[in-house]
Order: sequence, then C-alpha cells, then structure tokens
Amino acid sequence: MKDGGVFPVLQNDLLLRAARGERVEQVPVWLMRQAGRYLPEFKEVFTAHDFFTICRTPELCCKLTLQPVDRFNLDAAIIFSDILMIPQALGMECVLKAGVGPCFNKPLTSREDVTRLASVSSVSSELECVYEAIRLTRHGLKGKVPLIGFAGAPWTLFCYMIEGAPSKTCAKAKRWLYTDRQLSDELLATLTEAVVEHLVKQVEAGCQMLQVFESNAELLTMEMFRSVSVPILRDIACKVKTRLHDRGLEQVPLSVYAKGAHHSLQVLASLGYDVVSVDWCVDPTIARDFIGCTIQGNLDPCALYAKPEDLSTMTVNMLEKFGVRRLIANLGHGVYPDTEPDNVACFIDTVHSHSKLMMSGEGDTCSLYT
Amino acid sequence: MKDGGVFPVLQNDLLLRAARGERVEQVPVWLMRQAGRYLPEFKEVFTAHDFFTICRTPELCCKLTLQPVDRFNLDAAIIFSDILMIPQALGMECVLKAGVGPCFNKPLTSREDVTRLASVSSVSSELECVYEAIRLTRHGLKGKVPLIGFAGAPWTLFCYMIEGAPSKTCAKAKRWLYTDRQLSDELLATLTEAVVEHLVKQVEAGCQMLQVFESNAELLTMEMFRSVSVPILRDIACKVKTRLHDRGLEQVPLSVYAKGAHHSLQVLASLGYDVVSVDWCVDPTIARDFIGCTIQGNLDPCALYAKPEDLSTMTVNMLEKFGVRRLIANLGHGVYPDTEPDNVACFIDTVHSHSKLMMSGEGDTCSLYT
Repeated sequence: MKDGGVFPVLQNDLLLRAARGERVEQVPVWLMRQAGRYLPEFKEVFTAHDFFTICRTPELCCKLTLQPVDRFNLDAAIIFSDILMIPQALGMECVLKAGVGPCFNKPLTSREDVTRLASVSSVSSELECVYEAIRLTRHGLKGKVPLIGFAGAPWTLFCYMIEGAPSKTCAKAKRWLYTDRQLSDELLATLTEAVVEHLVKQVEAGCQMLQVFESNAELLTMEMFRSVSVPILRDIACKVKTRLHDRGLEQVPLSVYAKGAHHSLQVLASLGYDVVSVDWCVDPTIARDFIGCTIQGNLDPCALYAKPEDLSTMTVNMLEKFGVRRLIANLGHGVYPDTEPDNVACFIDTVHSHSKLMMSGEGDTCSLYT
Repeated sequence: MKDGGVFPVLQNDLLLRAARGERVEQVPVWLMRQAGRYLPEFKEVFTAHDFFTICRTPELCCKLTLQPVDRFNLDAAIIFSDILMIPQALGMECVLKAGVGPCFNKPLTSREDVTRLASVSSVSSELECVYEAIRLTRHGLKGKVPLIGFAGAPWTLFCYMIEGAPSKTCAKAKRWLYTDRQLSDELLATLTEAVVEHLVKQVEAGCQMLQVFESNAELLTMEMFRSVSVPILRDIACKVKTRLHDRGLEQVPLSVYAKGAHHSLQVLASLGYDVVSVDWCVDPTIARDFIGCTIQGNLDPCALYAKPEDLSTMTVNMLEKFGVRRLIANLGHGVYPDTEPDNVACFIDTVHSHSKLMMSGEGDTCSLYT
C-alpha cells in the first residue's frame, strides 16, 4: 500500500546538510540504537511483545522510533527495525533469545541451504511492514527531523545466517570464505541485491537518509575486508543511486559504518557514501587524516556511564578533535541498555551548545575560510 | 621447591635470536594456543579433568605443553596455563563453563570486594604449581626449543574479574573506568604487582621468554588505551627487567600482544618490549611502518581452515609482506578448536621453507646489507 500523500515539511535539516558537507549552525547529533532498552517507555513495549513481532508491526515500530525524538533534542530519527529482517524475508526463521541475542533455528550449512532461500524478488513484499512503518513515522514526526533507513551489509548478514547465534569470532562464516569462496560470493551477491532493493524501498516509503551497517568488518583481515566487503559496499552505493534515479526518486545521503575497519578509512571514504561512520576505537584526529567526506561518530558508548561533567568534557574533547565541519555527532556503537537517559540528553546538549560555540569562534577568526 | 638442577642445553634458539633482532637462518614459528583442543591428544586430557585442575597439576601442564612440540616442528613451547590463574591466586573462584567460557562465582562489584582480595604477596606461593610445571617442562623439552611464560595484562584481568563471564563489550568493567577511576587504578596497581611477580617467578623457574597478553585492548578508545593500559605495560616491562637483575637472573626477551591496539603500534614498540605481537587485522605492511622492533604475528586463525595450497599461499604472502628479518611467525590470535592439525603443520613448514628461500635470495643479492 503506497501512501500517496505528502509528508509534513522538514523543519530541521541539519543532518542532511552536514551529510552533504553544507554549512550548519550547530553539529547535528543522533545515536545508534537511540530507540532502545535504556528508555523505560521502550522497555514497556519490549516486554509486552516479541522482538520480531514488534519489527513486523508498523504501529509499534513507529511508536518506538518516535520515543527518543519526543524525549530528546535529536536531529534525526532512525526507523525501528532490525538488520535480520532481510534474512527472515529470505525465509530464515529467527528468534531473539533473552541473554543470548538473535538466533536462527536453521543456520545455513551447505549449498543446498543457500539454494532453498526465498527469491530476492520476494524480499520487498515480505518487508512491506517496514515501509508502512516508515510512512507512519514520517507522518508521526510531523517534519521535526529527518528519518533514516538502514540495512546490514551483506558480509554482516552472511555471518548471522551461517553462525545461527551471536559469535565473537564468526569462525563458521569465515570458514566459508576461506574454503568455498564461490559459494560465499553467490550468497553475498544474493544478499547485496536484497540490501539494495530494501534500501531503495525505504527511500520510496519516505526515508531521507540511509545507513549501511557492516558491523562485522572487525573480523576480517585488511585483505579480506578489501576483497570481500569493499566491492560490495561500493556496489550498494552505486546501485542505490542508480535505482533511485531510474525510479524518479530523490537522492538521499548515504552513510556507511564498518566497525573495526580502521585499516581502510581512506578506502571507505572513496566508495560513494556521503558519510563514513567510525567506531570509538578510531581516534578523531586519525579519522580526519584519512576521511575527506563527512564523518559520523564516535564517542565510546561507555562514556555515557560517566558523571555528566566528565561526559561533557569527553564530548567537548571529541568535538575539538574532529572539528565542527562535516561532522555528525554520534556514538561509536549503539547505546547500551544500562545507559542513564539523562546522560543521553547531556551528550546531545553538549554537542549542540559546544559546536555552536566553536562555530561562533570560527565566525570571528576564520571568516576567510568559510 | 626450587629445582636447583641445570636444565638441558638449548638446541634451537631461533626464537630468542629473532626476538633480539639477531641473524637467523629461517623465521621461527609458534602458535598462540598451540596446546589446544584441536589436538586429539589434548582433548583426551581435557575431557578427563576439570580445566583449572589441569592448570594446577604440574605433570598435566607439562604433558600438554609438550604435545604440540612433539607433533610439530615448532620453534617454541609455551607453558600450559591460564591468564586467570592470577585472579584465582587473589582469592577469586573461577570455573570453565562448557560453551560459555571462564566464569567467576563472585565477580567484583564494589570497593569492598577489591579490599577482600588476597594479598599480592601470596600470589607467587599460590602459583607454585605453575613454576613446578615450568621446571618439569624444561626437563621434558630436553633443550629442543625455548619455553615461553606468560601473563594476562592487568586491564584484561580487570575485565574478567568485574564481568564474571565472557562479555563482548565488557561494559561493566568499562563502567568502573568511567565512573571510579581511583578505585580502578587501585585494582590495576594490585594486578600489575601480581603480574610482574608472576612473570619474574616464571623466569626463575625456567622460562626463556615472556609474553604479556592485553587481549582486551580492543575495547578501549585510543585515549583510554594510552592512559589506562600503556603506562602499566611500560611499568611491567621495566619492573620485570629490574627485578630479574636484582635477583641475579638472566634477562629474557619480552613480548607484548595488545589485540585491537591498531592505533598505538608505534607506542607499543616503545614500551621496553623486544617483540610486538599483532593481531590479524593489522596489515603486515602497516605493522612494519610503525614497529621498529621484532614483530610477531599474524595470520588469521581462520586461514588454517583453507586447503593446504591456499594456506601456503597466504603464509607466503604474509612472509613477503613482513619480510623475514625481525620476525616471529605466529597467528594473529589463538588456534581455534576446530582447526585441522595437518594445517598447523602446513603453516609451520611453509614459514620455515619459504623464509629460508627468502633469506637465501637475500644472501645472493643483498650481501651488502647483512
């Protein structure tokens, strides 16, 4: 079901301007997993419903997406969903086991298992619930901030589908890469097509920016990352743009988050994404040395445990190291469930107030550059 | 009980020479967790006894240490033990839970818990079983290869002692760092003293090289790594050397492995260690750019899943990228339990044969440099 209607006019486009490298009055900020268990209002929904049932219920996804935006002075919303919606749309059953994480009943073990996956062409109809959630949310947001859509990158999905349960090493998935590269490439190609289509459909439904999560980049050697993940990430950016154009949809900024890919920052900045999102182990100064486009990041999620005055200092320090141009402030990973909501507010407010201060200073002394 | 006797004369000192940067005829090679569950003869012992009972039984530690040396053409043995022997010596009870990993019955939660830890002075008497295992092993080795001793670095032990069970984020331990730095520093100081004494005692017992494992470096920001872990690692190297000297013991090469500390390779090379051991996510070329001393590493443990011809190619590629001088070949992490022993042999043999070939080439064309 297409919405057809026009969404409320966007009032805060800081995120989109920063992503495109345009001038902003203050640094935009949002947090990965900002809709999460650290919010009591989230936990209410989370305990009343099964996780993937929530993901398939547009009204609940909309509600959860709006919660942090209602509570905090955020510059973006990100649709509440899960990267494992794609493997599920391909026919794999998945449950969230408490204290363990997402688990597939029948992880992939052979070529036969791969052959049995549903056709990629069915993915977007299977994920209609996500697109409906996006439309509802665009209305619910009333133009307050832009809405981000996302997908897991193929290598990261590949790991989950083969491991079946969270794994620190993903040795089973890596065994596939090292022993049957052809089969691995076939599965990765299927996932790439599914990811591209899912991203485009999210824009069609109303998303104003997209982020690709390669959370398992950290498991690969530099060579493997560059031979397995990089060509696919490049392909995704290229195909999304082409497909948006072909379908008469507006282009949206693209962001890539490759956790642990410290060895390839410059490469990541060259793949066609507007934004490179870095984890907390990348020092801001090093990130700026290698990334020419907009950077998103990267406070240690655990820094939100600190006392507000210490948290402020660390946030200021991060801003000073990154500088305020071409920056989207965020954490270096998702918010942890035991985070104090007041500290999330402190982080957001410090980003806004200090970046404004830095920019006003720029105005006085650096007008020649701006 | 001191051994008193003299150990058999060392026949293969490739490892020690490479560590000191001296000339070698071929690159020495050993593997982290080379005594491990991938060996059927190890599994026999492992299923018959509780893990930490093994660690406290010198004869079994000796047996397990010798197994890979008997089977493969290795250039080093590493005493079979566990980094969690120190927290146990400090009074914390620990069990290895199948499918989970090592778990403490009562993880540290407060200053009171820290105060209740046993005195550091009792650590070396508590760990007499390790020193006895070392003496037995030195005899059992008959001088075939040198014996490496080791300890977990304080930050890594700190994580285990606070988390209580394996954790991907170690958010509880990091909470301590971010909220009570003074208490954290006190605990880290206790652990540092315990680690130093344990390392020195291992040399006194017969170890010919030492490795410090900072496996949880990967959880820290660059700033936190440099403010928390780096001063301690420097302190350990310095104090071990001083104490060896003061007790009339010979100096031994020191190696440091800080998994995930890609941002601080140059810093690591300046801390007083002879060898910097790098994980598989650090590209050899980058490692050489930043590390002036001997490098140890760093094949992806999952590369051992590949067919022997592919494994050989990857091993050759690693050697070519590192170059054969000041190199100790190893994996970038421990051997995984589902590794084929024949592939371990293939890795070892390829290191020897190809490094010899590279060195003979050097002899012809580069005699001016040598």
